[in-house]
Amino acid sequence: MRAVKLYGAGDVRVDEVPMPTIREVGDAIIKLAAACVCGSDLWAYRGVDPINDPVTVGHEYCGVVQEVGPSVKNVKPGDFVVGSFFASDNTCEICRSGYQSGCLDRRGMGAENCQAEYVRVPLADGTLVATPRMPEPDLVPHLLAASDVLGTGWFAAKAAEVGPGKTVAVIGDGAVGLLGVLAAKELGAERIIAMSRHESRQKLALEFGATDIVAERGDEGVARIKELTGGLGVHSALEAVGTQESMMQAIRSTRRGGHVGFVGVLHGVNIPGGEFFMSHVHIHGGPAPVRDYLPDLIARIVERRIEPGKVFDLELPFDEAAEAYRAMDERRAIKALLTF
Amino acid sequence: MRAVKLYGAGDVRVDEVPMPTIREVGDAIIKLAAACVCGSDLWAYRGVDPINDPVTVGHEYCGVVQEVGPSVKNVKPGDFVVGSFFASDNTCEICRSGYQSGCLDRRGMGAENCQAEYVRVPLADGTLVATPRMPEPDLVPHLLAASDVLGTGWFAAKAAEVGPGKTVAVIGDGAVGLLGVLAAKELGAERIIAMSRHESRQKLALEFGATDIVAERGDEGVARIKELTGGLGVHSALEAVGTQESMMQAIRSTRRGGHVGFVGVLHGVNIPGGEFFMSHVHIHGGPAPVRDYLPDLIARIVERRIEPGKVFDLELPFDEAAEAYRAMDERRAIKALLTF
Repeated sequence: MRAVKLYGAGDVRVDEVPMPTIREVGDAIIKLAAACVCGSDLWAYRGVDPINDPVTVGHEYCGVVQEVGPSVKNVKPGDFVVGSFFASDNTCEICRSGYQSGCLDRRGMGAENCQAEYVRVPLADGTLVATPRMPEPDLVPHLLAASDVLGTGWFAAKAAEVGPGKTVAVIGDGAVGLLGVLAAKELGAERIIAMSRHESRQKLALEFGATDIVAERGDEGVARIKELTGGLGVHSALEAVGTQESMMQAIRSTRRGGHVGFVGVLHGVNIPGGEFFMSHVHIHGGPAPVRDYLPDLIARIVERRIEPGKVFDLELPFDEAAEAYRAMDERRAIKALLTF
Repeated sequence: MRAVKLYGAGDVRVDEVPMPTIREVGDAIIKLAAACVCGSDLWAYRGVDPINDPVTVGHEYCGVVQEVGPSVKNVKPGDFVVGSFFASDNTCEICRSGYQSGCLDRRGMGAENCQAEYVRVPLADGTLVATPRMPEPDLVPHLLAASDVLGTGWFAAKAAEVGPGKTVAVIGDGAVGLLGVLAAKELGAERIIAMSRHESRQKLALEFGATDIVAERGDEGVARIKELTGGLGVHSALEAVGTQESMMQAIRSTRRGGHVGFVGVLHGVNIPGGEFFMSHVHIHGGPAPVRDYLPDLIARIVERRIEPGKVFDLELPFDEAAEAYRAMDERRAIKALLTF
């Protein structure tokens, strides 16, 4: 089968690799309905770590179950399923508390070939959620978005305690930030301020439910948020970038007693204790427990209440994966879908 | 009147100073029932900042109202009152959300003479809470504790989402940490692990409701907490020290999805983003909104349900304030009460 491999910084190729096989009794093999590139794949693509041997990339997936291991009970061949970027047993105490991405037996799906034609999913019973019926083909991008970017934006909103009557700022206009806007809207936020300076992203943010757009960044962005909120700051800030500047912007944009939900993978960020102490904000985040939200997200998608797949503004044949990475790296595309 | 002044690192004196007067229409003048030294007063005492002119110290107070400004309606001369270390209007949007210590018009009581015979309290209507009747003299230390250390321990527990069924770790065995133990007990925690290596403090922690004592610190302390919690860590950690080590100990002792409540004034602390991201903990804290809790705390004290004043293990005449500071600095005393 074909799989995307990263050979070095900026060097993406589509290779022929062996088909995945059942290795543990709880595994499932899935034929992927489509594949896609995540913003977090770009860290490796940009060479954040040296690469010697070709590495597996991607961690988002949905598709049809082909085969299951002997212990699998919750899904069966022929089911259309969606899973998260962490496989989880969904039975341990941490899973049951709603933190499946911190499952005591979690397995990172980055180790499997998710940008490929088939993928092995460990802990299938805990990880995979089947759709109520075979979805219409136009729903595939939306379901694929649920695997990570929608679930991650949803967690940012949940971690920031978004709810009715709240004013929300979303920092980051990538797929996760934009879907944070959608999540905030779905969770009943009264006002949603999207921070973006790119016209096409601003447009999608408005479509997803943003009520205000702020193009300024850093201290100027904070000042603008304060202006829009009577000097107090927002109740909830969603941090979907992961840099020092964006994290400080989130903290400084939030009113006392408010909440910062952060999902941008933090790189070289330090939160200064003294300022955090005086800010009175709550901070929570990390790898999103997407599994917890999947039943709800899938229902919203198949009932056609939300269209998270709109973040895919570039669709390419699978063999053109290299161009998908390039387009995202150069910010020509928000998110690229790879079709078979 | 007499007031404590800090002349330089380690140099505490009792001076004769002018009586405070009503300066704003909302002021009240209070005759203090007793005074006390706070752990946070020790930062200045130890010379964290250079001192040129003698500075005012202290910020905890309770006593009898002597005089009020013309706009004051909620308290009157003769009332016994307790206030917090931040005066607050209790009417602004931030106050109404429960963050009076972040009041838009807050005034730090550190600027007044709280270690003195009389003190001026601005924003008296919003700040002061009267006891239902003149308290018996033996209740004074408990009510004075409510002004800061009890309210601060209470906030740590609230910020860490302590509640029934929860396992709690308290990092710091100063007055705030010990009263964090008491707060956790009152808020229904199932198990309370006090981290302390001092016998007298361990004893008081047990008296306040601790179920376990851990003497180890840093990584060893974390390992011991993990051992006691089936490898998961606690639901709630109360950070009542304010150092890098204690903050990291709090984060690392907390299970995924759990909560760290921090009230130790952070000095030179940086929270490393990458580790925080992967930890899945919530962090919240800062200067405690003691005003929010005062009615409840006063009721618990005057009904003799709690005895927070037990943290005062040294009582000295007011003129011996210098020895009170020395004893606390040398950790010979948990907290010193100064009586007139």
